[in-house]
Amino acid sequence: MPYFDTASAAPLHPVARQALLAALDEGWADPARLYREGRRARLLLDAAREAAAEAVGCRADELVFTPSGTRALHDGIAGALAGRRRVGRHLTVSAVEHSAVLQSAAALQAAGGAVTEVPVDRTGRVEAGAFAAALRPDTALAALQSANHEVGTEQPVAEVAEACRAAGVPLLVDAAQSLGWGPVADGWSLLTASAHKWGGPSGVGLLAVRKGVRFAAQGPADERESGRAPGFPNLPAIVAAAASLRAVRQEAAAEGARLRGLVDRIRERVPQLVPDVEVVGDPERRLPHLVTFSCLYVDGETLLHALDRAGFSVSSGSSCTSSTLTPSHVLRAMGALSEGNIRVSLPTGTTEEDVERFLEVLPRAVSSVREQLGAPTGATTSAGSASELVLDALGKRCPIPVIELAKVIGDVPVGGLVTVLSDDEAARLDIPAWCGMRGQEYVGERPAERGAAYVVRRRV
Amino acid sequence: MPYFDTASAAPLHPVARQALLAALDEGWADPARLYREGRRARLLLDAAREAAAEAVGCRADELVFTPSGTRALHDGIAGALAGRRRVGRHLTVSAVEHSAVLQSAAALQAAGGAVTEVPVDRTGRVEAGAFAAALRPDTALAALQSANHEVGTEQPVAEVAEACRAAGVPLLVDAAQSLGWGPVADGWSLLTASAHKWGGPSGVGLLAVRKGVRFAAQGPADERESGRAPGFPNLPAIVAAAASLRAVRQEAAAEGARLRGLVDRIRERVPQLVPDVEVVGDPERRLPHLVTFSCLYVDGETLLHALDRAGFSVSSGSSCTSSTLTPSHVLRAMGALSEGNIRVSLPTGTTEEDVERFLEVLPRAVSSVREQLGAPTGATTSAGSASELVLDALGKRCPIPVIELAKVIGDVPVGGLVTVLSDDEAARLDIPAWCGMRGQEYVGERPAERGAAYVVRRRV
Repeated sequence: MPYFDTASAAPLHPVARQALLAALDEGWADPARLYREGRRARLLLDAAREAAAEAVGCRADELVFTPSGTRALHDGIAGALAGRRRVGRHLTVSAVEHSAVLQSAAALQAAGGAVTEVPVDRTGRVEAGAFAAALRPDTALAALQSANHEVGTEQPVAEVAEACRAAGVPLLVDAAQSLGWGPVADGWSLLTASAHKWGGPSGVGLLAVRKGVRFAAQGPADERESGRAPGFPNLPAIVAAAASLRAVRQEAAAEGARLRGLVDRIRERVPQLVPDVEVVGDPERRLPHLVTFSCLYVDGETLLHALDRAGFSVSSGSSCTSSTLTPSHVLRAMGALSEGNIRVSLPTGTTEEDVERFLEVLPRAVSSVREQLGAPTGATTSAGSASELVLDALGKRCPIPVIELAKVIGDVPVGGLVTVLSDDEAARLDIPAWCGMRGQEYVGERPAERGAAYVVRRRV
Repeated sequence: MPYFDTASAAPLHPVARQALLAALDEGWADPARLYREGRRARLLLDAAREAAAEAVGCRADELVFTPSGTRALHDGIAGALAGRRRVGRHLTVSAVEHSAVLQSAAALQAAGGAVTEVPVDRTGRVEAGAFAAALRPDTALAALQSANHEVGTEQPVAEVAEACRAAGVPLLVDAAQSLGWGPVADGWSLLTASAHKWGGPSGVGLLAVRKGVRFAAQGPADERESGRAPGFPNLPAIVAAAASLRAVRQEAAAEGARLRGLVDRIRERVPQLVPDVEVVGDPERRLPHLVTFSCLYVDGETLLHALDRAGFSVSSGSSCTSSTLTPSHVLRAMGALSEGNIRVSLPTGTTEEDVERFLEVLPRAVSSVREQLGAPTGATTSAGSASELVLDALGKRCPIPVIELAKVIGDVPVGGLVTVLSDDEAARLDIPAWCGMRGQEYVGERPAERGAAYVVRRRV
């Protein structure tokens, strides 16, 4: 049963499992204690820190272990902002950062600080010049991921780091998705990561802060982890996390190249096998193991369940799979289609056969969902009589508004307008995306009594 | 090799180990995901929450899992204070709470709030009436441990809860040391605990918040754990934590009674076997497995190492074993002797033979440390000629100032004064404690150019 969602959580690496079992016996005591069990625990903790620091490319005393990647980001951002409060209270981030970064930014704004979100291009990549231009004299911190967690696009970290250095702004790099594949380009001031993304256990994140970077840990004081991560350390898990990081790094070059080929195959074949699909993200500058695509006229949750029944575990950035019923902020920032969105992230060891079977199953899964929803097939050929038409899709959820739009577009002549009334958040993203994919013109959006009115001009 | 420091961290319970191994295979995926691995993880998380809630005595939806007991306290206190900010910014705590509570209180004070620390008696127990009197109209929260982590004394939680209820103030109970032994008396509003104290793995704390208690989680928003504990949950460890809590509870009555007998034996025999020892804490209203005593004229760290070499792992609240060179705040609040302090906390399964061997080893260990330090033996018998005497102990660390005091007290006649100049924090606690133990009169303390001047009148 292939599991294709390693970007959420990777199954435990065999080396992690082995290290964890050993550390359960040797490393359960308090490493701050002076007796033999404490000293043994301290030795394990020190060795894990050395190993993790080597993989990160920093000194051991620059790195602390946190309870998760999210906590590393929350506490790292809060500490860096507080450390430079005298400089200002402005934070620069890309628009496609992890929600832990964007929620930290929202907390800063709620507390009276300012945030600039640097937009990304259609592939999800920030432009280094645009990022540099968003640095201000009062910028306390900049944050940029090494690679995107939803679409795999690599960010220009080296150039952005250089711009930050020139501006005297510390750069925090969220390396959660890439650290297992290799170190981050030099030049960062703070770095965060999460062990269960590289096959370590859950409960372990990393926060590295370069010597000389101003940092003031927030919250109540605590002696653990240089005062930067309060609470008893999650020790057996930390040992396992460090051991598996070293193990996956040894396999990274070969396994990365192999998975890159499998992902290339998915990127190439999915649009051939499934009509009306948009493969998103940068085809070259990307994580080796991750690919994301969106399927027109498809309900993401239904597709996800269909793939699950067929034995494939994938995730989705479609609005119907989120608790807030809004599409992924990454797809939104990219302006990509969000309906029928599927992220495939291959764990190490994924076989060619697994991928071939996925490519066999996917077209049937998509077409069955489209049939259930009564999605239109083929191009619009009718002449159309009404010169203008209003489609009331209020109360209908993704992908229904787009399906209904596709069904009525033929009712207006070429040059005619269709106005879609919708209160579904996904419509804002998916109607323009549909226009792009079907050769229609997206005229724009205007406010309406409920939701918004989206105007489309028939072009074909 | 008996490990007698279960109050710091208990070795992993066999049930926890078994549950952890099973959950490593079944519970590594993201419980928020819709595919089968996610659903399996969700089932495990839900079952663990049900089990933990049953042991705590609350509803499952009132309980979240945190990365540690410390984080449960930090986040629980911050959330409860913020939830009642309109009422006021005053916090009432006992003087002997865990440092995570006292550091949260210090953070509140630094942010402009107010804190009342309710003193404890000589046994380390707060008086419920005094606690009630420390509740004010602007008190946002009160916090009281169920039992003390250093001396084992149980606090009058039921009476304090009743007083808090009458005053309309929510009570947070830190149950870290007692939850494995039984549920906390009803009436609490928030409850925290830590799994590695009951034989669960590290990396898991509990925070329960009763329905209806105002709570506003602080820090960046996050969807996990009802928005109260951000970050990917430490799932296999959570499963193991809940399983071992259930297991230790089943053994609690029998094992508690057995360990209580062993601790009674230590409490009775240590003063018989070792001269000049103070056994601290309440002899009756106490945790079953924990006992603490202090040895006059002894360096805590040296004693700890001597016991370690003899095969016994214990902890100490002496100043020389802390990174800040200050004695434990618990011993300070009790006014107990802090030098040569040893905490013994027996893990489940400790045998009578282990305890007997400890009682055999301890007197030799204490006397060897006393010999090394040249500690005085026997009572003061000399007549003394100088009517007043100043002892310069500046720059000398615990227990040297007290040893030197004991050596010179005979140089003044009965009724004469010795003034000890000391800049050692422990002197403030240990000179009065020495006076009490040796029948001398502690006159008081006055400021000095360096440190303080402690005045003692010879009485015997």
